Amino acid sequence: MTTKLDIAVVGATGTVGETLVQILEELAFPVATLHLLASMESAGSSVMFASKKLKVREVDSFDFSQVKLAFFATTPAVSRSFAAKAHKAGCAVIDLSGALHDAVAVVPEANPERLGQLPQPALITSPSAGAVALAVALAPLKGLVDIERIQVNACLAVSAQGREAVSELARQTAELLNARPLEPRFFDRQMAFNLLAQVGAPDEQGHTAVERRLVGELRQLLGMPALKISVTCIQVPVFFGDSFSVALQSRRAVDLDAVNRALDSADSIERVEADDYPTPVGDAVGQDVVYVGRVRHGIDEDEQLNLWLTTDNVRKGAALNAVQVAQLLIKHMA
Amino acid sequence: MTTKLDIAVVGATGTVGETLVQILEELAFPVATLHLLASMESAGSSVMFASKKLKVREVDSFDFSQVKLAFFATTPAVSRSFAAKAHKAGCAVIDLSGALHDAVAVVPEANPERLGQLPQPALITSPSAGAVALAVALAPLKGLVDIERIQVNACLAVSAQGREAVSELARQTAELLNARPLEPRFFDRQMAFNLLAQVGAPDEQGHTAVERRLVGELRQLLGMPALKISVTCIQVPVFFGDSFSVALQSRRAVDLDAVNRALDSADSIERVEADDYPTPVGDAVGQDVVYVGRVRHGIDEDEQLNLWLTTDNVRKGAALNAVQVAQLLIKHMA
Ligand SMILES: NC(=O)c1ccc[n+]([C@@H]2O[C@H](COP(=O)([O-])OP(=O)(O)OC[C@H]3O[C@@H](n4cnc5c(N)ncnc54)[C@H](OP(=O)(O)O)[C@@H]3O)[C@@H](O)[C@H]2O)c1
Ligand SMILES: NC(=O)c1ccc[n+]([C@@H]2O[C@H](COP(=O)([O-])OP(=O)(O)OC[C@H]3O[C@@H](n4cnc5c(N)ncnc54)[C@H](OP(=O)(O)O)[C@@H]3O)[C@@H](O)[C@H]2O)c1
Repeated sequence: MTTKLDIAVVGATGTVGETLVQILEELAFPVATLHLLASMESAGSSVMFASKKLKVREVDSFDFSQVKLAFFATTPAVSRSFAAKAHKAGCAVIDLSGALHDAVAVVPEANPERLGQLPQPALITSPSAGAVALAVALAPLKGLVDIERIQVNACLAVSAQGREAVSELARQTAELLNARPLEPRFFDRQMAFNLLAQVGAPDEQGHTAVERRLVGELRQLLGMPALKISVTCIQVPVFFGDSFSVALQSRRAVDLDAVNRALDSADSIERVEADDYPTPVGDAVGQDVVYVGRVRHGIDEDEQLNLWLTTDNVRKGAALNAVQVAQLLIKHMA
Repeated sequence: MTTKLDIAVVGATGTVGETLVQILEELAFPVATLHLLASMESAGSSVMFASKKLKVREVDSFDFSQVKLAFFATTPAVSRSFAAKAHKAGCAVIDLSGALHDAVAVVPEANPERLGQLPQPALITSPSAGAVALAVALAPLKGLVDIERIQVNACLAVSAQGREAVSELARQTAELLNARPLEPRFFDRQMAFNLLAQVGAPDEQGHTAVERRLVGELRQLLGMPALKISVTCIQVPVFFGDSFSVALQSRRAVDLDAVNRALDSADSIERVEADDYPTPVGDAVGQDVVYVGRVRHGIDEDEQLNLWLTTDNVRKGAALNAVQVAQLLIKHMA
């Protein structure tokens, strides 16, 4: 029998945190005591876990030496303030914010071996949803496609920015349909029936933090630190489900049949045949896999492989990946 | 004084046709008599032009020898049936459907010289909105960027598929907000708050006709018949305004300052600085230019140039381009 662990979830009231708590229950993760943490604002509220109401407490006064494993599904600032403290108290940390620069990015389908190589307690990043989706889809192709460059156009759902962004899209849409004047709050302009060409502010070179994060994490996950990855992340008026248009440039002609077979034999991938294509709503949302469709060569270019990916950003892209990492990690824990 | 011309607009009641008639008036195009044509269904209805109500007539019984110039803003099938007939009757044809394979694609900002080289009466294609936007944005960069490959992710507005698609997005959105069951009609699934990974059916190689059309036309417009262009066209829940995430692969480092200067000096381009970015709603829609933003190198790759384009697909991408082509064409007409 697996030993049960005392666990903390920081950000338990958020989009990702709530799903993470659900998934711990769904997958019967060996939890002894579960500590749910958030800010002062949510302290005192409660969240259901294993048919019990658990009280949410304030992270500021929590003693992390009580737990062996902590998930940080919260803002980068909160991770920066408390993850190192938790780690020093002897607690393994799985952070979802991307704020911990010495943490190692892990996706079980891509680089599970990294977990066995880490000093204990481990400091791990569950990567951005885009890096998870791309790593899951590309890991089975590494031996088949001699990848020279990856080109990604990521269409991010508003839920990628948390609860407030979700309400804002709903509110804006209702205002427009009722012909009321639009007053953007969370986003700086109209998000409903519109596309925003960047998510977050760009740096001096014109790249956003989300784009840099995706590139850095994907290089780590594929074990290809110098891989050329070019990416544009845009915000689309979709509530849940991130989608990715991907072009892989290979050094030689790509064998499509072999690619399809490799995708079909991967457990976490659902490949959709050419007579159909996967969509966020209807396919990906609520599912535990990455959907892959539109598998094809470039036009007049057999050295290019094009793919369309879509996945549940909150579930497979964040909460589920974090729990799947934890499932492997506990095998390495004393 | 310019001689006035007798003109026909086939598809005058459609999304593009209505705008085209408006633009003929706005630009004071030298029209003698304007003939508005459509199917039996719209025959008898009327459209305003130069403060007069003009009756729409059926295309089937129209005698094209009455006019010197005909715009075809209608389905490919209608263009195929009537454009050759019009052309034989001595009429210059500007087709927007892409159905005429011997017609020459023209965008005044990219290849105006082609108009002087054509046998009269001319047979011209006003290209797809994507090809227009890309040609306008890339033509000024041809001498600056030694283009090896172009990678495009096109996010097409529903209006790119005409009136019915526009009503369907509105109807679906209202149904969802009112928690009524969704019944897709025009699209085969939920379009509201969703992304469709392809527009139209794919061919044997997995490419759609819209994608093939864009590649073929862009090669013609840039005068680079063997250029590697790879493209994915997706359908987004936006009413008006197509957007394009573009990566140009160059054979040498790209000089960003020179690129910005070239974009700034082009009349049909509005460049947006790095502290902002252009959006379809709010910027492009209703405007006569192509908006260009997010001008930057690839991450760790100075040989790559990334751009974000957005433009009014119905106006600049279709109706306005067709009229601007006509403005140049009439100078070459006897
Ligand atoms: N959403 C996604 O698709 C996704 C995917 C991958 C990674 N991520 C990352 O996961 C993290 C959480 O994202 P989310 O979408 O779940 O955000 P969210 O819905 O906005 O939730 C944020 C959570 O953090 C808590 N929090 C905020 N400020 C706090 C503070 N000062 N002290 C303690 N707790 C605080 C909130 O608690 P209160 O209820 O007290 O405010 C809430 O539980 C982010 O770093 C995000 O980048 C998100
Ligand atoms: N929308 C865009 O952004 C865009 C951009 C570039 C190019 N295009 C191309 O431009 C063309 C027109 O597109 P649209 O968006 O304006 O389409 P639309 O809104 O559906 O309008 C279609 C027009 O064609 C007419 N028509 C349809 N069937 C006909 C028939 N059997 N005989 C005569 N007329 C007929 C319709 O007349 P009724 O009123 O009688 O039905 C209507 O005037 C298409 O080929 C499209 O691919 C569109």
